[in-house]
Amino acid sequence: MPISRITTCEGGPTFSRIAQGYASSSGWDYDADEMARFIEAGLDVGITTLDTAAIYGGGRAEMLLGDALERHPALRDRVEIVTKCGIGTFGTSFPHYDAGKPSIIASVEESLHRLRTDHVDALLIHRPSPLMDADEIADAFGELRASGKVLHFGVSNFTPSQFELLGSRLAFPLVTNEVQFSPLYLDPYINGTLDQCQRLRVSPMAWSPLARGRLFTSDSEQAVRVRAELAAVGAELGGASTDQVALAWVLRHPSNVVPILGTGKTERVRAAAGADALDLSREQWLRVWVASTGERLP
Amino acid sequence: MPISRITTCEGGPTFSRIAQGYASSSGWDYDADEMARFIEAGLDVGITTLDTAAIYGGGRAEMLLGDALERHPALRDRVEIVTKCGIGTFGTSFPHYDAGKPSIIASVEESLHRLRTDHVDALLIHRPSPLMDADEIADAFGELRASGKVLHFGVSNFTPSQFELLGSRLAFPLVTNEVQFSPLYLDPYINGTLDQCQRLRVSPMAWSPLARGRLFTSDSEQAVRVRAELAAVGAELGGASTDQVALAWVLRHPSNVVPILGTGKTERVRAAAGADALDLSREQWLRVWVASTGERLP
Amino acid sequence: MPISRITTCEGGPTFSRIAQGYASSSGWDYDADEMARFIEAGLDVGITTLDTAAIYGGGRAEMLLGDALERHPALRDRVEIVTKCGIGTFGTSFPHYDAGKPSIIASVEESLHRLRTDHVDALLIHRPSPLMDADEIADAFGELRASGKVLHFGVSNFTPSQFELLGSRLAFPLVTNEVQFSPLYLDPYINGTLDQCQRLRVSPMAWSPLARGRLFTSDSEQAVRVRAELAAVGAELGGASTDQVALAWVLRHPSNVVPILGTGKTERVRAAAGADALDLSREQWLRVWVASTGERLP
Repeated sequence: MPISRITTCEGGPTFSRIAQGYASSSGWDYDADEMARFIEAGLDVGITTLDTAAIYGGGRAEMLLGDALERHPALRDRVEIVTKCGIGTFGTSFPHYDAGKPSIIASVEESLHRLRTDHVDALLIHRPSPLMDADEIADAFGELRASGKVLHFGVSNFTPSQFELLGSRLAFPLVTNEVQFSPLYLDPYINGTLDQCQRLRVSPMAWSPLARGRLFTSDSEQAVRVRAELAAVGAELGGASTDQVALAWVLRHPSNVVPILGTGKTERVRAAAGADALDLSREQWLRVWVASTGERLP
Repeated sequence: MPISRITTCEGGPTFSRIAQGYASSSGWDYDADEMARFIEAGLDVGITTLDTAAIYGGGRAEMLLGDALERHPALRDRVEIVTKCGIGTFGTSFPHYDAGKPSIIASVEESLHRLRTDHVDALLIHRPSPLMDADEIADAFGELRASGKVLHFGVSNFTPSQFELLGSRLAFPLVTNEVQFSPLYLDPYINGTLDQCQRLRVSPMAWSPLARGRLFTSDSEQAVRVRAELAAVGAELGGASTDQVALAWVLRHPSNVVPILGTGKTERVRAAAGADALDLSREQWLRVWVASTGERLP
Repeated sequence: MPISRITTCEGGPTFSRIAQGYASSSGWDYDADEMARFIEAGLDVGITTLDTAAIYGGGRAEMLLGDALERHPALRDRVEIVTKCGIGTFGTSFPHYDAGKPSIIASVEESLHRLRTDHVDALLIHRPSPLMDADEIADAFGELRASGKVLHFGVSNFTPSQFELLGSRLAFPLVTNEVQFSPLYLDPYINGTLDQCQRLRVSPMAWSPLARGRLFTSDSEQAVRVRAELAAVGAELGGASTDQVALAWVLRHPSNVVPILGTGKTERVRAAAGADALDLSREQWLRVWVASTGERLP
């Protein structure tokens, strides 16, 4: 059973409920054919949404994806590509943010060139800058939309206040806010990010939904508690693995979260896809929450 | 002079400015007649609003109130009953939250059964859950409203962001947000909760307005400072007691707060009612604030 | 080249991009003629906006300004006067807040009397009080506006939530939120204040944009780092001084910030005016940010 699909907001793109991330892909050592087979393995289980960024691997993440798409051109129409802009050195030696109009436009041109495609499905501002000018971003988005080079627009790591600011300048919706959360990182549940997504009916995307592996390897008291509880829930669900339960836990929020896998291993992608079919009870979900906070529910 | 009354929001219920709480009522050791006399004593001073919850005393708080109402049926139309749902074990051994539609409906049915009444005046979601689905809650509220089993709906312990989320799904207003505050617990003044209530013209309710008695007994530096300042203000107001001044302090906010008494002692209820007639000056109010924060005003 | 001008919001007043503050003016030891010459020196570089408050110097700041305006009446129409109300002892011995209607009206009457003018260009509520009644403030503002005694209204030190509350009660916009920020004090960039200003297209004013001199004198690690980075940026900009770079840094935010100078020294005012022409790159701005936070950008 392939994983399900959702539209991220009214008028937004349709994504697979689990996305494949390419933040670490330059370390996978895949040539173009191997990368294409990896994408195919995801497609086999229903993962069609590919999440990358101009900055990942200093451009190599997009380049490797582009190599695969060039060698296997039929793949392009079977996937949605999400990329990001706004982080770089921009001709200096200091890594910083630039979400000015020229920078956004140039970044998209470079991404399209590296990806060997004529459009991306969604472009996200990678990080909010304290200097960000919402009118300038809106102007850039409008131009990219009119040209057809970018179909949808969103943000990443924005606070509710920043999301509201940028949204106020656009004639079309921001289709996602890609933020960090996992059973070990609960901030978006508490700081209003997920409240806002649910209120606006916008799907968030979750980066590091497995806490970059800390869920499995960390010796912190929090990780030890959460790992034990995920295992217990997995057993109750008929033997689901810890990463499946962790992903199902992230998927469970009513805002229609799209967690992003970080792995480059086909077998782990296949396993992860099984999370979509798991249905945690409220009790099971909140036991993991309590294990994470270390405090009883009030 | 009976205490005054307010409508909690446009179209909302009319409550007495001070409510009687039943969180601890299973410890009062009142039989049905004694409980009825206790309610009558409140009515004598104008307290008509009774605040309880499905979870208080594991259901016994509602049961004891119902026993009194059954024995003295004329009481029902002289009071407003506020109850709450969403906390429990729900068939497990783990205390948690369930604000799903079936759970809300079932909880109200059980509350009505225990209370021996055909309706409650207001139903509150007792605690926000990180998993709460606003559409599902709205659906349950709509059904309960149509059936006449619940006249008004509100929340308890919600952040401004959660209040805005749930409110966005309803065709009628949330009539209150019942939160903790007192001269010893200032969070709602600082975190936007009272700003939101004032902006939306919704009366908050205040639980533990006397800080569960810590105001009178705690040796913390904060409590000692606040107690001294309340006593000084009481003297200036012609001999008002510390609990009267503390309640008057909570009542003083322009959002029309309804503080909830926790006591089961008739004489303390009578004394507390006197708070409604006290009029603290801004200077007196802010002296108590400064005593609580331990810092001069900026 | 005189410094530029901005309208603080749609329908709002037009201010110089840098304002002159009078918080410390009673310590300058200027007689009326000297004060007039100081104002003239500001006008020479384009500073027309004068920021004071009823409480500054216990009324003496307004009085000294009034002495200068009385002696040199032609000055009045060449400047915009911003004053503030709501802090005082109000007949007690306890410094506190009173933003009740009678207090606001009385404060403005006293300010006009001290300033020897028939109107101020903008009146700000000096500090948010936890007791503030937005309807009462709105009522006072409406009356002062109708009488022509105050042309525009704003606030100071308000949180976004408090700004939204008061704004919800007014038929005209709040024209500014005067808050503290500088390269050493970043809170408004983080807590949503500047997001809100940008979203609503309202110019904030910045008090202590040079951190009351700590930028130049403090030995804290943060100040040492920021001072070094400001100096480096100044050198890159062809020899701009540290205070010029710091002011240019504050001016750079897209919300059209109006920083307020605190100095009474003509030569420092002249130097500061040079900040308006400096154009920091995003890289330079963010290097100062990183020096202030002590952490790399995420």
